[in-house]
Amino acid sequence: MRITYKNMKKEFERILRKRGMQEKRAEACAKMIADTSLDGVYSHGYQRFPRVIEYIEKGYIDIHALPEKIAGIGAAELWDGHQGMGNLNAQEAMGRAVALAATFGIGLVAMRNTNHWMRGGTYGWQAANEGCIGICWTNTRPNMPAWGASDCRIGNNPFVLAIPEKGGKHIVVDTSMAQYSYGKLAVCCQNKTKLPYPGGFDEKGNLTCNPAEIEKTKRVLPIGYWKGSGLSVALDLIGGVLTLGKTVTKVGKECEEEYGLTQVFIAIRPDLLNGDQEKAQEIIEETLKDIKASLPDHEGGSVRYPGEATLQRRKENMEQGILVHPEIWARIRKL
Amino acid sequence: MRITYKNMKKEFERILRKRGMQEKRAEACAKMIADTSLDGVYSHGYQRFPRVIEYIEKGYIDIHALPEKIAGIGAAELWDGHQGMGNLNAQEAMGRAVALAATFGIGLVAMRNTNHWMRGGTYGWQAANEGCIGICWTNTRPNMPAWGASDCRIGNNPFVLAIPEKGGKHIVVDTSMAQYSYGKLAVCCQNKTKLPYPGGFDEKGNLTCNPAEIEKTKRVLPIGYWKGSGLSVALDLIGGVLTLGKTVTKVGKECEEEYGLTQVFIAIRPDLLNGDQEKAQEIIEETLKDIKASLPDHEGGSVRYPGEATLQRRKENMEQGILVHPEIWARIRKL
Repeated sequence: MRITYKNMKKEFERILRKRGMQEKRAEACAKMIADTSLDGVYSHGYQRFPRVIEYIEKGYIDIHALPEKIAGIGAAELWDGHQGMGNLNAQEAMGRAVALAATFGIGLVAMRNTNHWMRGGTYGWQAANEGCIGICWTNTRPNMPAWGASDCRIGNNPFVLAIPEKGGKHIVVDTSMAQYSYGKLAVCCQNKTKLPYPGGFDEKGNLTCNPAEIEKTKRVLPIGYWKGSGLSVALDLIGGVLTLGKTVTKVGKECEEEYGLTQVFIAIRPDLLNGDQEKAQEIIEETLKDIKASLPDHEGGSVRYPGEATLQRRKENMEQGILVHPEIWARIRKL
Repeated sequence: MRITYKNMKKEFERILRKRGMQEKRAEACAKMIADTSLDGVYSHGYQRFPRVIEYIEKGYIDIHALPEKIAGIGAAELWDGHQGMGNLNAQEAMGRAVALAATFGIGLVAMRNTNHWMRGGTYGWQAANEGCIGICWTNTRPNMPAWGASDCRIGNNPFVLAIPEKGGKHIVVDTSMAQYSYGKLAVCCQNKTKLPYPGGFDEKGNLTCNPAEIEKTKRVLPIGYWKGSGLSVALDLIGGVLTLGKTVTKVGKECEEEYGLTQVFIAIRPDLLNGDQEKAQEIIEETLKDIKASLPDHEGGSVRYPGEATLQRRKENMEQGILVHPEIWARIRKL
């Protein structure tokens, strides 16, 4: 079943307006979620929307709250999200980092008391659309064991890097510190398929490709084993130290569910530093061309750069409509 | 065989002075390499030193070259390393980022035409010792296949995150985008031990824990498979776009060995933003305490935070002397 981009966006707007969200904010919020679905990141787009409404109704998300600047020095600012809508808060934070970068070459906004930002890549694309390198990350509830542990005390803390490309073919990496999301495990369980590579540990403590075993133990695997575990802890602490907001530990202890998060947004203006955007563009093209010319590891294979598949899916979904799961879409229609 | 810290440093100084390096620079350079060995990161400390001398003699490293600021706006600067000594260049770059952060809250130095920085963690510890969050990375020669490829066209591009702790127990993650370094593979080959987890592909294209098989194919595994591959490409492109210096592609095409690299250094002053360093310290302590209280995955196991083991090794090696391989040390003595 496919829904046009326009209709999907309109539907999200209707539902947010019904909960009392101010008109322009509802439009911006709906656009981001529709855009995410358009890009084919369904799990963090329309599929997550019912959870957003649930969190609004439970009072975890305050749809009227506006983020506020608490402190700032030069190119760096501390903001409080006041438990507002996560994607609107994040959009404003990255927008502010972009504005700071226009003056200082680089801009940083660290935000506490905010909410799930849905798809992290959104703010990478946002920065890149403004000609900026974007670097941002969020923490989460405790959802992964630290390396060497069997209980979940660290977050998968999604991390985003974006590089602007002249023609809009931005390079965007949006990756959590877990090998697979719980969403991916659930989809594989439903479809009774195995994971292509081990994604966690079974009850005997062995690595397994069986998603049901991992759902049982909650022992999801950090990327690169000890490496992703360390990166997760460091990203979380940077946010905590900059904002005095909640680290993963505090989200776990003080929040019933995943809210009150801490996020960091950095934007950099390469054109203000390098003074030759034509040359920068050449470097991007030469590098990606070389990587794409790699010998594929199997016959008929191909190597893609980060973000490349996104553009293709965006085009397909705009032309053909966005593929939705009929049951989930029916549930959304009733919200 | 153990060498005291003092004697190791003096030996490096002697050798660098013999090649004509200016006295104070030789001392600073020797100190960093001794410090790295003291911290137990032998592969990037004394073991790499003969290669440094080889590169100086081949003219890849110009020991007299000083890095130079090319452009700057506000908190962001572009520097040229002029093919100087990699660790001295990197130390100056992070030092400058720290100085910019004192004024602007955050500082960025992007450097082109520089050389191997030895141990990336050095500059994380440096930033943290100055009360800064440190974020930095370097590119490398092509030494890893992109995900889906069988030939090496991307770098393992080490990436560092550091968080300052009041008592000097900084949290420092220093990780390349490859699951294992070629150094680790060589050590395991020598000792005829297997890798604890798969580190690459064998000639049949299967993941393997056999280091000799991976040395044959050069198909080392990125952390998190496609995730580390994407991160590697993005980190490299950020450096390339900011500096117009060499990406991994160009290092591979234009340089006979690993030189002419591109690096990025970011420092952030949390105290200037959060205004309450006591609270920041509490957050670090509470978070690390919680992570360390994890249930270990096996009896008698324990969970460590990134950087924790470093401090322990530093103390041991200072007291007992730095453990060196007699043959490698003998070779150094003859330089």
